[in-house]
Amino acid sequence: MIEMTPFLDRNSEKPLYMQLSNYIKQEILSGRIKSNEKLPSKRSLAQYLGISVNTVLAAYDQLSAEGFIVSKPRQGLYAAVIEEELEFDYPYSQPFLIEEEKETNRVLIDFNSGKVDLVHFPYAIWRKLTIQSLYEDQGELFYNGNRQGERVLREQIAKYLFASKGVRCSPDQIIIGAGTQMLIGLLGMIIGKEQIYALEDPGFHRTRMVLQDLGVRTIPIDLDSDGINLSKLKQSNASVVYVTPSHQFPYGMIMPISRRMELLKWAEENDGYIIEDDYDGEYRYKGNPIPSLQGLDGKGKVIYLGTFSKSLIPSLRISYMVLPPILLERYRKHFTIYKQTASRLHQQTLYYFMKDGYWQSHLNKMRTLYRKKHALLMSSVEKYFGKNVNVIGADSGLHIVLEIKKQIGEAPLIESAIASGVKVYPLSTYFHDTQGSPDSKILLGFGGLTEFEIDRGIQLLKAAWGF
Amino acid sequence: MIEMTPFLDRNSEKPLYMQLSNYIKQEILSGRIKSNEKLPSKRSLAQYLGISVNTVLAAYDQLSAEGFIVSKPRQGLYAAVIEEELEFDYPYSQPFLIEEEKETNRVLIDFNSGKVDLVHFPYAIWRKLTIQSLYEDQGELFYNGNRQGERVLREQIAKYLFASKGVRCSPDQIIIGAGTQMLIGLLGMIIGKEQIYALEDPGFHRTRMVLQDLGVRTIPIDLDSDGINLSKLKQSNASVVYVTPSHQFPYGMIMPISRRMELLKWAEENDGYIIEDDYDGEYRYKGNPIPSLQGLDGKGKVIYLGTFSKSLIPSLRISYMVLPPILLERYRKHFTIYKQTASRLHQQTLYYFMKDGYWQSHLNKMRTLYRKKHALLMSSVEKYFGKNVNVIGADSGLHIVLEIKKQIGEAPLIESAIASGVKVYPLSTYFHDTQGSPDSKILLGFGGLTEFEIDRGIQLLKAAWGF
Repeated sequence: MIEMTPFLDRNSEKPLYMQLSNYIKQEILSGRIKSNEKLPSKRSLAQYLGISVNTVLAAYDQLSAEGFIVSKPRQGLYAAVIEEELEFDYPYSQPFLIEEEKETNRVLIDFNSGKVDLVHFPYAIWRKLTIQSLYEDQGELFYNGNRQGERVLREQIAKYLFASKGVRCSPDQIIIGAGTQMLIGLLGMIIGKEQIYALEDPGFHRTRMVLQDLGVRTIPIDLDSDGINLSKLKQSNASVVYVTPSHQFPYGMIMPISRRMELLKWAEENDGYIIEDDYDGEYRYKGNPIPSLQGLDGKGKVIYLGTFSKSLIPSLRISYMVLPPILLERYRKHFTIYKQTASRLHQQTLYYFMKDGYWQSHLNKMRTLYRKKHALLMSSVEKYFGKNVNVIGADSGLHIVLEIKKQIGEAPLIESAIASGVKVYPLSTYFHDTQGSPDSKILLGFGGLTEFEIDRGIQLLKAAWGF
Repeated sequence: MIEMTPFLDRNSEKPLYMQLSNYIKQEILSGRIKSNEKLPSKRSLAQYLGISVNTVLAAYDQLSAEGFIVSKPRQGLYAAVIEEELEFDYPYSQPFLIEEEKETNRVLIDFNSGKVDLVHFPYAIWRKLTIQSLYEDQGELFYNGNRQGERVLREQIAKYLFASKGVRCSPDQIIIGAGTQMLIGLLGMIIGKEQIYALEDPGFHRTRMVLQDLGVRTIPIDLDSDGINLSKLKQSNASVVYVTPSHQFPYGMIMPISRRMELLKWAEENDGYIIEDDYDGEYRYKGNPIPSLQGLDGKGKVIYLGTFSKSLIPSLRISYMVLPPILLERYRKHFTIYKQTASRLHQQTLYYFMKDGYWQSHLNKMRTLYRKKHALLMSSVEKYFGKNVNVIGADSGLHIVLEIKKQIGEAPLIESAIASGVKVYPLSTYFHDTQGSPDSKILLGFGGLTEFEIDRGIQLLKAAWGF
């Protein structure tokens, strides 16, 4: 007789027959029970395992229905012939390796600006709320939800945005989506692909590439110490401008109120739009909060973009945009064909997380934590580099720019860091024309690192760069 | 005392107290229980409903924790004042109503082709696997995952596609995304926006609109009884063609092997691409399975698209595409900037679901179920309409087309159905030129309806249309 040693758990939620049929299925799939091998009779198996004949019968029925076993008249049950795995005849034989995956193996400390602190994420609460969402409204959550995103979550977002950013909107104006890129693609179509889009230079390369992939014309606009250069913007023939006023990416300046007012005036006079991307505005270390452009806008010229990727966790894939009425109307007329892309379960869980006050506590906790990490980063840079570097954009956010006062190119800086097990990031990525990027600057994100790693990383960089 | 008539189902998986608290929540939100209205004491409510005092207590605790009811000392419990949305100082005062949401209130039986059977979805197993995923790899799952989608899931998909569709691919060629629309947008950019795309006419309107929104030129191609008309395709200057060979949408024909071979030859001769959208190919009721175009293709000319929206649940937002090597190379070169949009938790859960054999069992179960529903639909149509209608495309999938042999336009057919509480769907949506659509045809989806609803729905339609 075939040897079978299934672990059957009588306390499991899964019925015994299912446990048994799954076990046999695995044995067949793995080849431990071979094709055409005879299975024990239900009586002998029941006796052997100490379970009822009906349980074995139910398991065999299940396996039979699924085609894993076949009955031969007057002979009994046999394992079916299971088709062999795929490997043998892929039409394309070359392996498709992703290069970065190899590279990261060597990195010990990664100053990736996209990473956030996950050690302090409230896993237990998040799990509890996920499970709560899973049990509630059986079925309901498994259908496609509202295409703008779950109404209850949009209500929470509207309240939060009003209280913490001065954003004035109704939940109706909010459109949720699986990531900012996806929303910018949609937004580009709503505003219009015939428009000309002015972008901060340097600025978010992902926004630039999404817009360019859409076929939209983009114009790079220099920065000055207050953010996007307004006279350059005025000289351009752009009608839409994309800015990161809470914390310019990558240089980190915070746009002062005067510049914000000028920008709004520009939009009004040019019948244009401002896309305000507040990707990590939750974390500021100096100065007073400045109201969002959206909150200062009385004419419906601003689209506010936010995300939970930096402030909560990246893998949720929940971002949102707030549309002014005219664009909302266009969305409602034409773009409702696009289905919601964010998970309904995660939206529901996030709704509970916000409603029950966990979101606010989490933000408070993370503010304190990032403030500490940020202070440590600054003191490590001071300790190891002293006057050999300048720090740029250190008032806010989860990254800084380091300017090295030595004639070393960007590529050698990154390569020598990697050789020492530290990953730092280029600034050239963020320039329209990579030729125009300064050679001696490097981007350091610190959100995902521990305090020890931050200090050790900076120390390793000092040695790597020969200071 | 407030009148309460909740339907409490003791056989439901949802505990009674939860059913009760949900009911009261709805009553408060809908205004049927007014702000500050006194709630019955727990004793009197328990007696009235014939349930235990503890159940009522638990429900009240829940409502209280969620802020729906408040306790006034020595007076009892009162419905809370539910905030009238943020109305107070929105800068824009017009209400943004979504019209369809109102309309659906009146519909009793909805023949929506996008709905699937959720009654038989294995909730308990799915929950268990979700919880298992939540507990495993703490932290890991909260970071952004692989941008093509989780490797383990792609492996399962590759195996499944080979075994059930004859699709030959390595997991490296699979790109997962939050919905087919999102993937078609990405694919349009990878193949190129300068290409001309031929589309089945009638065909999926969402594909057409995504491509048109991208700025791509699309050409409608008529159908014949075997699917897309190949001589028309050859006369066009299209270099890419989008087809639904397993079950043409909406007409339902299955493309025979001969047409498939011709189509592949066309692609080879024109150095073109075929987008094969297998949106519901899991369910066929007649004939033998025909290998996918991708499986027949030896030249890397086919992009295979699949989704779990029809075969599992829509709200997962997990679809995928299989790229041939040349397109994969382009994706790897330029489009890796696009982050993964599908939830990593859901991907992980789906991986377990497939690996542990639940996916195969679920498919088998659903096949049997949909076969029964389909047979019932056909017999109901026969019973109530007899020779007054033709059924089109009944060999496969979760919808049919009904041709009514009477001079009634599409709009009146839909409106009179709605007046009888039945929602049926237009065919004109799927035509490039809505003028070209036939007047007397209607789309009926049956996946989400019970057998009783299907029969009752067809009966109501007979009366509504005056047969």
